[in-house]
Amino acid sequence: MSTAAVRGAVEVYLDLLSQPCRALHILLNCAKIPHKVRTVALRKGENRSPHFTKLNPMQKVPVMVDNGFILTESVAILKYLATKYDVPEHWYPRQPEKRARVDEYTAWHHSNTRPHSAKVFILEVLLPTQSGSPVDSMRLTRALSELDDTLDKLETMFLRRQPFLCGDDITVADLLAVCELMQPLGGDRDVLHNHPPLQRWRTRVQSAVGDAFNQAHAVLYAIRDRRKAKL
Amino acid sequence: MSTAAVRGAVEVYLDLLSQPCRALHILLNCAKIPHKVRTVALRKGENRSPHFTKLNPMQKVPVMVDNGFILTESVAILKYLATKYDVPEHWYPRQPEKRARVDEYTAWHHSNTRPHSAKVFILEVLLPTQSGSPVDSMRLTRALSELDDTLDKLETMFLRRQPFLCGDDITVADLLAVCELMQPLGGDRDVLHNHPPLQRWRTRVQSAVGDAFNQAHAVLYAIRDRRKAKL
Repeated sequence: MSTAAVRGAVEVYLDLLSQPCRALHILLNCAKIPHKVRTVALRKGENRSPHFTKLNPMQKVPVMVDNGFILTESVAILKYLATKYDVPEHWYPRQPEKRARVDEYTAWHHSNTRPHSAKVFILEVLLPTQSGSPVDSMRLTRALSELDDTLDKLETMFLRRQPFLCGDDITVADLLAVCELMQPLGGDRDVLHNHPPLQRWRTRVQSAVGDAFNQAHAVLYAIRDRRKAKL
Repeated sequence: MSTAAVRGAVEVYLDLLSQPCRALHILLNCAKIPHKVRTVALRKGENRSPHFTKLNPMQKVPVMVDNGFILTESVAILKYLATKYDVPEHWYPRQPEKRARVDEYTAWHHSNTRPHSAKVFILEVLLPTQSGSPVDSMRLTRALSELDDTLDKLETMFLRRQPFLCGDDITVADLLAVCELMQPLGGDRDVLHNHPPLQRWRTRVQSAVGDAFNQAHAVLYAIRDRRKAKL
């Protein structure tokens, strides 16, 4: 991207190891929104720097800055960008019932897909890496069972017989969900292996977003490969 | 409300002891959206009935049915009603930056105001009532300290020097937040007693919504009064 194109472009503060950051990265690239990525390396604690804390006192990524307008919370950022940057309407439909389905999923996501999928990665990869201790297999078993229950609900309540979570076309809800469910792959675990309908949905999401999918997940794939090489 | 007005009206499945149900109840009454309330008494387990489970497999209130369109998740319902029913624009502004502020708060709410305020009520009122055991004062002290931390953030990140959480006028974000923060009042505890700016904000919300505030909170006040009479 040329300097001229970047001037005045949306700035996003991201760490691609963060699930919602990847969702945002995919939307920006797929919808060709001119933007500038500022990397905030969580493992180096860059999210606790005075500069970043001023942008987001919660010290969380992602953060977006659009001409001085600072916005936190991935769900809000995705919807703001979809509205403001004239992206193809399917990402966040305007028709009230269709939009309500996206709002319904993104609300449900916070207390279901997100915590349950993240926990598997935390127990299997993050905590053992940080502490050097082995994986707590009892807690992991419990977390996997809770996640399985969430996946059943995701399938029966949202996906049903539709191609995407909120209907016939891909929306920001699919991005948030897929990036969350990819996370345990950092520990070489495919949490969808028992859920063929969700596997097919993931394949549809990958096809719909093209190269942007692997670009966003490159860091996660590298973690998986490094761990496998060590074993 | 006459039968004619109710025919074809929005149906909402509520229990006014649920915080997000009260937020929805206030919006419906304030914005004069024709509606029909169907009470789902959580304490009687009515949320686990086959009829209700069909509406919401998560067995949670509120649920909205609008001409056959079934919607769960309070945040999605509030935004759908504000969009579909031509309510005064301040409830959910159309201007992208203003709307993004509401989306930002409603996303933040799920992992902050809601769990931390609800926990105080659960520890102080719900669990002791259900189990007959005394309040676990250690857990309560911890929950109150976590809530206090959340209230500090609510004040510095959202309210700041504004009259309402997302700007100069009341939005659905204020309704969700205030109903959550009222909940510990069921145990006669005002969690805002150390937070004068948030107390003044609560008073502004009460004034802005008028009688709808006390109507929605009547059940909670009754619980508080019954507990006080017993002591």
